[in-house]
Amino acid sequence: MGSKVKRIVLLGSTGSIGRQTLDIIRAFPDRLKVVGLGARDNRELLSRQAREFQPRWLSLQSPEKFNQSGCTWVSMEEMACMPDVDLVVVATSGKAGLTPTLAAMRAGKTIALANKEVLVIAGELVMAEAQRSQVKILPMDSEHSAIWQCLQGEEGRVARIFLTASGGPFHTYSADQLAGVTASEALKHPVWQMGQKVTIDAATLMNKGMEAIEAHWLFNLSWDKIQIVLHPQSMVHSLVEFEDGSVKAQLAPPDMRLPILYALSHPQRWYSPYLPRLNWDKPISFTFEPPNLELFPCLRLALEAGKAGGTYPAVLSAADEVAVELFIAGRIGFPDIPKLVELTLGKYTGLAVDKTRTSLEAILEADAFGRAQARELAGARIN
Amino acid sequence: MGSKVKRIVLLGSTGSIGRQTLDIIRAFPDRLKVVGLGARDNRELLSRQAREFQPRWLSLQSPEKFNQSGCTWVSMEEMACMPDVDLVVVATSGKAGLTPTLAAMRAGKTIALANKEVLVIAGELVMAEAQRSQVKILPMDSEHSAIWQCLQGEEGRVARIFLTASGGPFHTYSADQLAGVTASEALKHPVWQMGQKVTIDAATLMNKGMEAIEAHWLFNLSWDKIQIVLHPQSMVHSLVEFEDGSVKAQLAPPDMRLPILYALSHPQRWYSPYLPRLNWDKPISFTFEPPNLELFPCLRLALEAGKAGGTYPAVLSAADEVAVELFIAGRIGFPDIPKLVELTLGKYTGLAVDKTRTSLEAILEADAFGRAQARELAGARIN
Repeated sequence: MGSKVKRIVLLGSTGSIGRQTLDIIRAFPDRLKVVGLGARDNRELLSRQAREFQPRWLSLQSPEKFNQSGCTWVSMEEMACMPDVDLVVVATSGKAGLTPTLAAMRAGKTIALANKEVLVIAGELVMAEAQRSQVKILPMDSEHSAIWQCLQGEEGRVARIFLTASGGPFHTYSADQLAGVTASEALKHPVWQMGQKVTIDAATLMNKGMEAIEAHWLFNLSWDKIQIVLHPQSMVHSLVEFEDGSVKAQLAPPDMRLPILYALSHPQRWYSPYLPRLNWDKPISFTFEPPNLELFPCLRLALEAGKAGGTYPAVLSAADEVAVELFIAGRIGFPDIPKLVELTLGKYTGLAVDKTRTSLEAILEADAFGRAQARELAGARIN
Repeated sequence: MGSKVKRIVLLGSTGSIGRQTLDIIRAFPDRLKVVGLGARDNRELLSRQAREFQPRWLSLQSPEKFNQSGCTWVSMEEMACMPDVDLVVVATSGKAGLTPTLAAMRAGKTIALANKEVLVIAGELVMAEAQRSQVKILPMDSEHSAIWQCLQGEEGRVARIFLTASGGPFHTYSADQLAGVTASEALKHPVWQMGQKVTIDAATLMNKGMEAIEAHWLFNLSWDKIQIVLHPQSMVHSLVEFEDGSVKAQLAPPDMRLPILYALSHPQRWYSPYLPRLNWDKPISFTFEPPNLELFPCLRLALEAGKAGGTYPAVLSAADEVAVELFIAGRIGFPDIPKLVELTLGKYTGLAVDKTRTSLEAILEADAFGRAQARELAGARIN
């Protein structure tokens, strides 16, 4: 406990994960110190956070800044590379975290990663940079944190991992029922409090498919070793089966602060009485079942894009972002989300032309293609 | 994999755990080698095992031996101390394993322990010897193996452990129903194939209380950190809650060969396709509930004896052995088992007289007291 304070740059501080990360940092003032805060456009909240945490650096993507004594305005990429930073928490969303993550890795910083698109769209590139720069990427997603926790101290090979999925609010629905689902229904997740995009992705299972892609890169696992299992109670956050057949699971109430804390405290665990704990004094029931890939094709599409590799996941991710945005706006139905993603992927031929190592440029091009194509296809379908 | 072969002495080779240990050794002929086999009185089976495994040493407690070329007859204590032995598997039952375990530890041998009475009746003595001799005790019970597996690579302190209990065949019974339970019903355990004594102990929950005592010693945990939870499916073999609130569990089908394999392969895990694996392709349900200490007082009695410490657990264990024997013989009813144990403990004053460090002599005296007193009390009640 006498160890030195970890100095943290937090990118995406005003989002759901960012705010919960600050909750944890606030609880351990002797061990964790914010030295930089970065946000996209929530000027008002960032300014309050700056007053409370007194960082040295601030970043805001919108041009209007504010005055905060002792703070210097920099870009997220610059902030992530500052010399006296121990850990860069990437809690941005979409592709916003990609270039700051790559910059931080090149500067030798440990990354705590909550922005799943970073690995989904650029896993190959990011892991190659991690290897080259000899830096660690610590997962902050509950599922990947669970896998990581289960792997502690294990020398042997992994037989399979099981990523658990709550299944979202519609996992018991029929095709007819799914056709009538509205955005406001889809935005009510039964267990997790999350941002809008990820809540819809949880309902379509796209989220779980993206997590499979992340797991593939984070833990260097072949696709046949990555399985998905529905677990509506969201208490078992994922499982690892080892070579001998023994399985380890990590459990906790569904509260993102626990995987965030683990990434910040690792390799220690810190006493945290304010976090909820599982209550074993009452009957508990955990259920598991295989996911239905026919009713939830986003999971299949994500796994296919992951296996295809290269820039396919970037197209998938971009098309899904457009599809979810249109669904939330009430412009397309729930079953149209996978349809639009599948049609967009069907139009993509980029990878066939250039099978060389995935570059940042190729990824950003694929992302732009996915967005434009999905909008065009949606326009054609809607009009 | 290129590591040297582990040379194993197996005490209690003809019992249920002993035979399953040989199944594992048979599966890994390049990594495991039997150098000694010891049994109580099953001459016929020991002779077959000797022909198959060709050990250098044999031990049989009954005076009639057999001829086996290349084998030398010794005592279990001598065998456990032989110079080229890497691991002593203690799979005896009752107090038979105690002196060979102490002898093996003094000779610096690693112990793989399946004989729970060794720690139940002599935990203080055995752990002190382990400390003095700097030897490891590797658990072979499924619950303690689960805890041990969950602790791998963890630096932090344990908040609580949860030992899971199948609850045996009667965990849903009322007091009236329990009164009518017969030995043949009690000997049919719903999930585990085990010896008679431990099967009855599983039905009374005495087994789980004894495992709590073992866990207290093995993992150096205070009593408030040891909890029991009923889990009728016996797939989650135990759980550990860490300081931060995160819980790890170890899961597998109920098959003792897996914890046996883990103790033999540790710190590695070995690929073992012949062992059953959990099937996630079908719906799975795991339930947990608190145990009923009023209907199953053996659990309470064991925890009380454990907390009282000293020689109390030896009296508990001895009284339980007598009670279970009488129950199997149809001489007392199922609810009489805890009554007899409680009455016997009530008669014991040994510890109050001598609060000094528990010695082997004191333990054996307490054991003799427990047996004699339980028989006397049972006689008084039966006649």
